[in-house]
Amino acid sequence: MKEVMCFIRLNKVNKTKESLAEAGFPSITCMKVLGRGKKSIDQVYVQGFIDAGEEIPSPYAENFTERGRLIPKRFITLVVNDDEVKTVVDTIMDVNSTGTPGDGKIFILPINEVYRVRDGESNESAI
Amino acid sequence: MKEVMCFIRLNKVNKTKESLAEAGFPSITCMKVLGRGKKSIDQVYVQGFIDAGEEIPSPYAENFTERGRLIPKRFITLVVNDDEVKTVVDTIMDVNSTGTPGDGKIFILPINEVYRVRDGESNESAI
Amino acid sequence: MKEVMCFIRLNKVNKTKESLAEAGFPSITCMKVLGRGKKSIDQVYVQGFIDAGEEIPSPYAENFTERGRLIPKRFITLVVNDDEVKTVVDTIMDVNSTGTPGDGKIFILPINEVYRVRDGESNESAI
Repeated sequence: MKEVMCFIRLNKVNKTKESLAEAGFPSITCMKVLGRGKKSIDQVYVQGFIDAGEEIPSPYAENFTERGRLIPKRFITLVVNDDEVKTVVDTIMDVNSTGTPGDGKIFILPINEVYRVRDGESNESAI
Repeated sequence: MKEVMCFIRLNKVNKTKESLAEAGFPSITCMKVLGRGKKSIDQVYVQGFIDAGEEIPSPYAENFTERGRLIPKRFITLVVNDDEVKTVVDTIMDVNSTGTPGDGKIFILPINEVYRVRDGESNESAI
Repeated sequence: MKEVMCFIRLNKVNKTKESLAEAGFPSITCMKVLGRGKKSIDQVYVQGFIDAGEEIPSPYAENFTERGRLIPKRFITLVVNDDEVKTVVDTIMDVNSTGTPGDGKIFILPINEVYRVRDGESNESAI
């Protein structure tokens, strides 16, 4: 069993939720977070990707104007069986990948035990 | 060492906190989250568990009216020693199990290291 | 790869963020949480550390007045390579250790896989 955690853009939450449900994973948890990546700032600002005075393309704007600041993001997490991880990762990638900095990250963590509170069912049958 | 994470109903936070403290686990962290399970929706809506026009029993109402939407939940997490996991799980189950969909889930994750910031104490003696 | 999670005081977020960035770890996520530790309450109240009527030193006040209640804290998490964990832990400790109850905790968890959504890069090269 694995936990699949992802940090994504605010405007991708609904589509991510719908796509996961369609792929057979309706059971998710979502939190409001503040965060930032590493490459986004490097690419946009340090490497002079955007010149001064130039209109900033929208995907970059949030990073550009918020340099050094944490940016509102959404955190979605779900627990799945080992053989479902690839499907979940692919689903999240499909919805969230715009090819621009700030698209987010996906992390996979090991889960030792799962319990459903309602009936005490455990592990794979409780997911 | 293990992290015990649980997703529970809003109205169970205080009782869960008190019961964990009484069982010797006062050190917890709580977050506001939005989430949903899988079975709850299946059972209530897809399997026709509740007929149209019928008054919806209160534990089901939130799922019924929020079909497909994420529901406000509370997330509680604590880190304990391996031999304490069962006590913590049992305590959470006792308080939160109503036998109805939406009661929540408990997940156990491995923890590699723990540090207490105040004095640098580590691992079991820092929990 | 490891996840380094820490629960710290509200007024330490900016300095922690800056110190982590200076140490080469700008990529973090922050959440608002409510939490409490174990020792803080024991030390301040049960062991009579502070006498009745005595003015409460500021670092203790929040614990003293909030006995049994969850206290607003901040949760910061980041994912790093195994050989970077010590640097990250030391950086968090340096900024957050005041030697008084409530300084917080650091937890290290194993990470199985990492994906950068933008380009599909995985694991160490995606951190």
